Amino acid sequence: MKAWEANIRRVVPYVPGDQPKGERLIKLNTNENPYPPAPGVKKALETMDHSLFRKYPDPAVTDLTETLAEYYQVEKNQVFVGVGSDDVIAMAFMTFFNSEKPILFPDISYSFYPVWAELFRIPYETPALDEEFQIRKEDYYKENGGIIFPNPNAPTGLFLPLSEVEDIIKNNQDVVVMVDEAYIDFGGVSALELINKYDNLLVIQTFSKSRSMAGMRIGFCIGSPALIKAINDVKYSFNSYTMNMPSIILGTESVKDDDYFKETVAKIIDTREEAKKRLSQLGFTFPDSMTNFIFARHESVNAEVIYEELRKRNIYVRYFKKPVLDDYLRISIGTPEEMEELYIVLQEIL
Amino acid sequence: MKAWEANIRRVVPYVPGDQPKGERLIKLNTNENPYPPAPGVKKALETMDHSLFRKYPDPAVTDLTETLAEYYQVEKNQVFVGVGSDDVIAMAFMTFFNSEKPILFPDISYSFYPVWAELFRIPYETPALDEEFQIRKEDYYKENGGIIFPNPNAPTGLFLPLSEVEDIIKNNQDVVVMVDEAYIDFGGVSALELINKYDNLLVIQTFSKSRSMAGMRIGFCIGSPALIKAINDVKYSFNSYTMNMPSIILGTESVKDDDYFKETVAKIIDTREEAKKRLSQLGFTFPDSMTNFIFARHESVNAEVIYEELRKRNIYVRYFKKPVLDDYLRISIGTPEEMEELYIVLQEIL
Repeated sequence: MKAWEANIRRVVPYVPGDQPKGERLIKLNTNENPYPPAPGVKKALETMDHSLFRKYPDPAVTDLTETLAEYYQVEKNQVFVGVGSDDVIAMAFMTFFNSEKPILFPDISYSFYPVWAELFRIPYETPALDEEFQIRKEDYYKENGGIIFPNPNAPTGLFLPLSEVEDIIKNNQDVVVMVDEAYIDFGGVSALELINKYDNLLVIQTFSKSRSMAGMRIGFCIGSPALIKAINDVKYSFNSYTMNMPSIILGTESVKDDDYFKETVAKIIDTREEAKKRLSQLGFTFPDSMTNFIFARHESVNAEVIYEELRKRNIYVRYFKKPVLDDYLRISIGTPEEMEELYIVLQEIL
Repeated sequence: MKAWEANIRRVVPYVPGDQPKGERLIKLNTNENPYPPAPGVKKALETMDHSLFRKYPDPAVTDLTETLAEYYQVEKNQVFVGVGSDDVIAMAFMTFFNSEKPILFPDISYSFYPVWAELFRIPYETPALDEEFQIRKEDYYKENGGIIFPNPNAPTGLFLPLSEVEDIIKNNQDVVVMVDEAYIDFGGVSALELINKYDNLLVIQTFSKSRSMAGMRIGFCIGSPALIKAINDVKYSFNSYTMNMPSIILGTESVKDDDYFKETVAKIIDTREEAKKRLSQLGFTFPDSMTNFIFARHESVNAEVIYEELRKRNIYVRYFKKPVLDDYLRISIGTPEEMEELYIVLQEIL
């Protein structure tokens, strides 16, 4: 090893889901939205002036921040925007999790949390979910350096009732509590209504799922002005201009087009509820998802076998080769047509 | 102070230059390119399909990385792309500067370096420039935890000959040496030609200046495969998908349109050389810039006064209210027409 290599920060990075290329495949592996972004986004893209790009974007991302503040009925100094919710969470870990005490997050959860903790050298503990894959709120009442959990949780899809979320916050007023609501629009109740009650609560959401904008990289968090100021200071110490012009312009249009948003989310919920019936009939069991995916195991056929067989037929779902999870497949909700194709192929395989 | 506030990472963030809004102003304060991005970028924007945005972008940014590798005649595993060179440098600091020994960068230099060092709690020392504002290579021969300097330097505009850059690298083979070449295309000689000779050398460049793409946020670095693997691992531990689809698509087109690139860079160099004559005639002195800006002081009128008077007339230049720098104005090179307007107004003021 060369001397300079000794000073490299060694990490085991997060591995994102495959992005297979090709026209004739059904991609149900990364929880993308099967519908295109709002028509307002299309229109804004068509009229975008490339000559603007020569200038730096607004570092404060004013248009998008103000539009989100108005939409969620909070003040603009309560909103922070980043390059996808991963960027927001990375910044939030760096900003708020600087205690010697371990932070807490569920053992089965977004697999990026331990990666960030390792990257920033933050001690952590991972309380186990209960036998029904649910978060046990009491596990989060012990001393800690901060808390983060997704609600609904991933990859289980389970929603924790808001009263229990509030119990966790109430019992942790000395640390920052982050609720990662990537999937909240598909049926859960957001902790945003608690924002003005608890100044240590940070709610994180994304444009990647319900807003069909994974390709644009837009995430945001909402919290007290003190939290938002602190994360903004860290952002300005990392990279002043994180959101490029297309993100700012198209993200803003996406939020403005609320009818389309509600309509596509409703369609996905319908398709998910139908999927629950159909997958049950095929012999699958699963926690009752409130997201745009279903975390399902089959009564007799091994998950990895199903995963491989689907892949051979150009249908991609997510399979985690890890203890506990390796009995399950995480199946994103596609269009009704894609799902019908999935049921037909599953019937062949099983 | 509340208990949770004790665990906040407290930082003094970098302050970017103003982004004043309005049609009739001349903006020479943030070293933006006065010309629009390449025609190929315009065309790709016009044909961009918004429905693609529902999917995640390619996390490996393959198209852009390969195009850059081909352009700079290196292997694709020698290129890393980020959200502007600020993102690349932030990741590089986090990845490579993990020694107990201080890193070194010039005292007068990009003012973000100390901000990153503070953010990541990296010890640092800042050797002074010489009386002509030039880097003294011998100052970088002492024991250290890593080195970064811009070449040409900012805000001085001075280029350090490649032989001296190489001397610094030769004397520092036990640490990572980063050369920040944001302005290299305006006349300097890039250290890229040393990449395959020194596996601890990282060369950082940006699309924000010479490629007229500040609004798109694209930066990159080139180095040995070992360096690029390490920074990629950290990136995948921070945010898997940093580059959104428009950045990837339009960035790639920008690199492909080489004739336009060379033509606009040549125009800016011409305008800069003319500016040197005209500013001299107006009583300014300045280091001999190899960038798209001139760092100038006036023989009799105070820099802050000139800055304020220009601002009143809707001409924005950069003024740093800091010791040594506060005698100077950093004037970005605009179009010939904008510069003529500047000379007229300066004549009125002086």
